[in-house]
Amino acid sequence: MAQKPSTPKGTRDFNPEQVAKRNYIFNTIRGAFDKFGFQPIETPSFENSDTLMGKYGDEGDRLIFKILNSGDFLSKANQQAYLEKDSNKLTPSISEKALRYDLTVPFARYVVQHQNEIEFPFKRYQIQPVWRADRPQKGRFREFYQCDADVVGSKSLWQEVEFIQLYDTVFSALKLEGVTIKINNRKILSGIAEVIGASDKLIDFTVALDKLDKIGEEKVKAEMLSKGISNEGISKLQPLFSLSGSFESQIESLKNILSSSEEGQKGIEELAFIDKAINELGLSSAKLQLDVTLARGLNYYTGAIFEVSAPEHVKMGSIGGGGRYDDLTGIFGMKNMSGVGISFGLDRIYLVIEELGLFPETVNKNIDVLFINFGDKEALFSLKAIKELRSQGVNAELYPDNAKMKKQMNHANNRNIPFVVIVGNDEMTSNTYALKNMITGEQEKVPLETLVLKTKKS
Amino acid sequence: MAQKPSTPKGTRDFNPEQVAKRNYIFNTIRGAFDKFGFQPIETPSFENSDTLMGKYGDEGDRLIFKILNSGDFLSKANQQAYLEKDSNKLTPSISEKALRYDLTVPFARYVVQHQNEIEFPFKRYQIQPVWRADRPQKGRFREFYQCDADVVGSKSLWQEVEFIQLYDTVFSALKLEGVTIKINNRKILSGIAEVIGASDKLIDFTVALDKLDKIGEEKVKAEMLSKGISNEGISKLQPLFSLSGSFESQIESLKNILSSSEEGQKGIEELAFIDKAINELGLSSAKLQLDVTLARGLNYYTGAIFEVSAPEHVKMGSIGGGGRYDDLTGIFGMKNMSGVGISFGLDRIYLVIEELGLFPETVNKNIDVLFINFGDKEALFSLKAIKELRSQGVNAELYPDNAKMKKQMNHANNRNIPFVVIVGNDEMTSNTYALKNMITGEQEKVPLETLVLKTKKS
Repeated sequence: MAQKPSTPKGTRDFNPEQVAKRNYIFNTIRGAFDKFGFQPIETPSFENSDTLMGKYGDEGDRLIFKILNSGDFLSKANQQAYLEKDSNKLTPSISEKALRYDLTVPFARYVVQHQNEIEFPFKRYQIQPVWRADRPQKGRFREFYQCDADVVGSKSLWQEVEFIQLYDTVFSALKLEGVTIKINNRKILSGIAEVIGASDKLIDFTVALDKLDKIGEEKVKAEMLSKGISNEGISKLQPLFSLSGSFESQIESLKNILSSSEEGQKGIEELAFIDKAINELGLSSAKLQLDVTLARGLNYYTGAIFEVSAPEHVKMGSIGGGGRYDDLTGIFGMKNMSGVGISFGLDRIYLVIEELGLFPETVNKNIDVLFINFGDKEALFSLKAIKELRSQGVNAELYPDNAKMKKQMNHANNRNIPFVVIVGNDEMTSNTYALKNMITGEQEKVPLETLVLKTKKS
Repeated sequence: MAQKPSTPKGTRDFNPEQVAKRNYIFNTIRGAFDKFGFQPIETPSFENSDTLMGKYGDEGDRLIFKILNSGDFLSKANQQAYLEKDSNKLTPSISEKALRYDLTVPFARYVVQHQNEIEFPFKRYQIQPVWRADRPQKGRFREFYQCDADVVGSKSLWQEVEFIQLYDTVFSALKLEGVTIKINNRKILSGIAEVIGASDKLIDFTVALDKLDKIGEEKVKAEMLSKGISNEGISKLQPLFSLSGSFESQIESLKNILSSSEEGQKGIEELAFIDKAINELGLSSAKLQLDVTLARGLNYYTGAIFEVSAPEHVKMGSIGGGGRYDDLTGIFGMKNMSGVGISFGLDRIYLVIEELGLFPETVNKNIDVLFINFGDKEALFSLKAIKELRSQGVNAELYPDNAKMKKQMNHANNRNIPFVVIVGNDEMTSNTYALKNMITGEQEKVPLETLVLKTKKS
């Protein structure tokens, strides 16, 4: 007896309901991307290993899924590594391809490879799965989708303004009200580090500051101290910890705190520009909030940094993020290609929408009408009606077998099919259909035209 | 200087136009699947190796992409195989997962794993990529999409009837007229083998017969002879080679040829049932044709066998296929689960539609309106109009930088954007927009409402 098969650790099957709900989110995001002038591209699931390796740090390299070369791969294996039984060293000689780890590096590769066909500034979106050999845990999977929109080839701050509008448009369309779009700017963080005399400790400093929400002021200070930031420097941070109020009032405070840093002032200017534009343009349901503790992949971002939080009453954390990077394609030898982009966290958005009951009832493209099968003559008569229904946009099907009536009705119930049609001798003779509403239980005999009208979705 | 990066052999990037065209085909197929009551599922890109290995024959096993275990994979390697440097033998101990090779085996795995949640008969569809380490050549890729629809849990021939209707619906919706849906039945092939005394050589016999179109009658006979089929047997085949005419007349000939084979008679009965139903129901643009030489994966199919050919004037070969299999899930220990299914060949359908110029002009979700950027004041004014346009369903964007007018107009031209809006001082003062039709060259000053009306897609 074979063992019941299963999916690999950290991966999932999606049943019809889940696929429908995921597609609802994808399609909403896609619709907004199109509206904002982003264009879709797709890249292969695997890349040459040298395209990916070394782009995500050591930890990233470790989490990349490598594909074993085909055929007699050992014949080309690194002999030294083979003798030493060194897995790490052996890998490049027996694996030339790897599954993509994110959509950003493949996008950078795409831009460089196709630079002569691309019309810049290039606004692209990409909705595809990525793979990471992470330890699976609740909400973390080894295969998951990323939804990214990026613009490359322009340093204009209007892009940042548009991305905030884009987030607002998507979450409003999903009826997910009350999300907070947090924004910061790397130049603010650099300015603060400069002011407290810790420019050489920018990463340590921001890693600590990023934890303010989680571990509180005292522990953040202790961590900074342990990383070698001076007491004097930390005391200069005091106004930051109590920074609150409106975007504008925080900007005013920052002007004081960062008065001696040119880069800090530049960051303030950028934030103020974006805030003013968003105020003029208005948001439908999201809030824009300045958060000077926001750091995210700081090594990467050079200007704006975004993060989106789910509505406060939902415990979920970030459901999106992004920022500006001034050198996307440098890793592939193409200089001066500034970009800015955002990402939507599909799995978390799904969980939030599910928790809040915001999936529309019509999300499932379920069948509208099931025809009961009483035998071949009735089936053929039914299929003629089914053909007409389908051509009118009604999803209809025939129960394939002449099974017991009860079994067929149960099938309709179990699949939540709203209408059942029964065709027997009477109906065939009178050219009518017995239409049963499975919700109300009502049943009536109707001609084909009425059948279409009654079952068509409004 | 870094080398210009590329995609792995046999894989492809898709640019915005290609993605749009592919999605047009996917969405058409998906729409028909929904209409016929099929429900979407998705399975992970990789499966446990033991789910896939041994299911596609030795050649298949070889073509499956294996994923290298993470971490120090050599520590758990098969020592004997390691010493012997036997790649094949080593693989199972350093690779536990593999990329899916088709959608059928993962579907079988899904049905067995989720049998208690599934309401049978289960009509599922699945549109996902698969991977094969095949030698790449024109039109053959290492990553490509499959689009499959299957029903499991019913032996009803009405399913076969519905699949023919489904093919017809999809190709008619794609405006791809004149495709031929060829049908055969394994029982016919078994019957013929029985009649010519070659039941034990069924595979050899059908492999040869399948080549009739390509190599002609004489060579087919020679091949059969070389495989040990007797001259006497081959002479009994003569009527098959000249089988032609309507479905009905071929059925009549077969009745004579197969009169001594019970299984053959059963096959004839099934084909006649399907033909009669399709005649009653009618097809929109496809033709149904009996083709007794059609074999396809014969080891697999137990009843109907389908194959769809592109219209005759297009040299493309098969653009779809399928059939009935009586034991889909037996490989995972679940018996008596009859299924029937069909598949659409996306890449070939794409090529045919491209060649015949059948992609609709609206397939590209391109931007409708580009606003020229003359500076921050004008940009903000423009973004207010853009916000209104987007809310009315018009895809609109602002050129991000205050670049030279000519550069911005070229951008609109290069992207085939149909309308450009120019906002300067005059327009801001009079609250109007200079709208330029990029196709006719006409330009007019209009208020916002008119701008919306003129740029909205009809």
